[in-house]
Amino acid sequence: MPTMLRMAHPDLIVSWLHTLVEATANVAFALSGLLAGIRKQLDVVGLCVVMGLAAFGGGTLRDVLLDRRPFFWVEHPGWLWVLIAAGIAAILFVRSSQFEFTERAIQWPDALGLGLFTASGTQLGLAQDMPTIVAVLMGVVSATFGGILRDVVCNEIPTALRDRRPYAVCAFAGGWVYVLAAQFATPGTAFVLAAITATATRAWALLSRYELPARHTAKPTE
Amino acid sequence: MPTMLRMAHPDLIVSWLHTLVEATANVAFALSGLLAGIRKQLDVVGLCVVMGLAAFGGGTLRDVLLDRRPFFWVEHPGWLWVLIAAGIAAILFVRSSQFEFTERAIQWPDALGLGLFTASGTQLGLAQDMPTIVAVLMGVVSATFGGILRDVVCNEIPTALRDRRPYAVCAFAGGWVYVLAAQFATPGTAFVLAAITATATRAWALLSRYELPARHTAKPTE
Amino acid sequence: MPTMLRMAHPDLIVSWLHTLVEATANVAFALSGLLAGIRKQLDVVGLCVVMGLAAFGGGTLRDVLLDRRPFFWVEHPGWLWVLIAAGIAAILFVRSSQFEFTERAIQWPDALGLGLFTASGTQLGLAQDMPTIVAVLMGVVSATFGGILRDVVCNEIPTALRDRRPYAVCAFAGGWVYVLAAQFATPGTAFVLAAITATATRAWALLSRYELPARHTAKPTE
Repeated sequence: MPTMLRMAHPDLIVSWLHTLVEATANVAFALSGLLAGIRKQLDVVGLCVVMGLAAFGGGTLRDVLLDRRPFFWVEHPGWLWVLIAAGIAAILFVRSSQFEFTERAIQWPDALGLGLFTASGTQLGLAQDMPTIVAVLMGVVSATFGGILRDVVCNEIPTALRDRRPYAVCAFAGGWVYVLAAQFATPGTAFVLAAITATATRAWALLSRYELPARHTAKPTE
Repeated sequence: MPTMLRMAHPDLIVSWLHTLVEATANVAFALSGLLAGIRKQLDVVGLCVVMGLAAFGGGTLRDVLLDRRPFFWVEHPGWLWVLIAAGIAAILFVRSSQFEFTERAIQWPDALGLGLFTASGTQLGLAQDMPTIVAVLMGVVSATFGGILRDVVCNEIPTALRDRRPYAVCAFAGGWVYVLAAQFATPGTAFVLAAITATATRAWALLSRYELPARHTAKPTE
Repeated sequence: MPTMLRMAHPDLIVSWLHTLVEATANVAFALSGLLAGIRKQLDVVGLCVVMGLAAFGGGTLRDVLLDRRPFFWVEHPGWLWVLIAAGIAAILFVRSSQFEFTERAIQWPDALGLGLFTASGTQLGLAQDMPTIVAVLMGVVSATFGGILRDVVCNEIPTALRDRRPYAVCAFAGGWVYVLAAQFATPGTAFVLAAITATATRAWALLSRYELPARHTAKPTE
């Protein structure tokens, strides 16, 4: 991925910016796992596993489905050390009040991650000659299945499936923007437009408190 | 799969019948996901994801285990649009009473799906030179893991594992019928016999209310 | 795996010992699945599935991630028959008091399994030229994800993630011992040292009742 972008934009600043956004996205996804793990009172191993699933689960599932290797965390194994250090630090040093602050604060880097994972997933799907709808779906899977695996392991119905605030829908929109833009523009431009679309629609959903329609049955089971 | 059958039976009617049964099976599996999602009050994204897991999860897991590509939903991406349309329609247009009707009605197309997925999974396992028991297991996985993934994501103990009405057992029986029949008959005949066996034993189990043995411990945890 | 070890130690006794330890480990992992399934009152199909996930889930996930075939249960399909027979026997013949006895008794063969799966997972990771931390992680995944899948399907937060008794941590330590020992010694020696480390630290944790640190939030959700 960084390689691809570097080919599209030989500019060093763009490459450096991309690394920065990628790091921000991974940290935001990992933090969402950390908070979920702490809420469930997991031990230090549990925190590391749930952080890893949240950060790398979506991209790894996408790569398994596309039969693509190496995984992100095999290519950049340093991130695994960051996760372990973060899990230990969370247990030893951080106070509860700081977690409450984090919960509200990570919505914004998480929206950045949504945009980045959407764009890179769709790009990889198209690069492997997938049908358009499947490529877009790969973007959605990259962006959302980390959170879904995090919630399944924490024994919750995944937020992405029941919280009516749009999330996967923003990734879906971003994926289609990639597909359209790739007809007229370079992959780098399509990447940026798709990421901005997904991130901006998510930010708008957070600010406007817009909700997707859902059904309420007469007799809910849960 | 359609190709294989078409080779065995060049007859156009058989090919058309197979497409019809396949469509029925996919729709039945997707509907079981839709009902589960509505019972859990998922939003429109959740409905689409749970429908997709129920319809394609078993076959996709089988293909990942057999290292086989492309997946069904990559070869036939039109089905993904059908799922999305069905999720939106379910939210907007359908009344609760219609869902209650559906719950009882889908048992029968679901039994058809059980037969079809069992036969095709066993056939694919044998085609990849798996040991016999593994090929039969691939049939069982194709037929049951969609429902298991659906229930795991909905935060329930999977019905297939605790509901004592035979389901996986019918797939297991159908798989062995395929293995035996393939010794004497064409793959097409074995396919049909296996599918009929799994579907018929399931229909018998539904009608007779037969239950598998289970243990009741003195102190159940749940 | 047996092949690799046999190359390292042509000695027949070692090969026979390895088969014995491997069988013990698989049986212990399967029994943990059996007990979990019985506690959730699963039917006979559920018992077999949960036993299979507990025994083979970790190794299969490792092989999917490493893109490695055949799986253990494809190479040794006889184990699948053992699982099915065990599930049926558990339903028909075994009394509750025997299960309560089993629960305490399997901790020790389970610790053996932890050691064996850790060593073989790390060995396979290194054999595929994975970065060191990833190879160690493959050992941890082999040893722990069977139990995690077992608990997810049984609708529980996985024991490995919240029980503060060290388990994954012992696998992690054993993996690093493999990596270090492989610098100076034969793969066979590294294998034995790694397995002993993971098993011994686990046994020590069980005997000493040592607990990992965890956080307790002011307002737990569960």
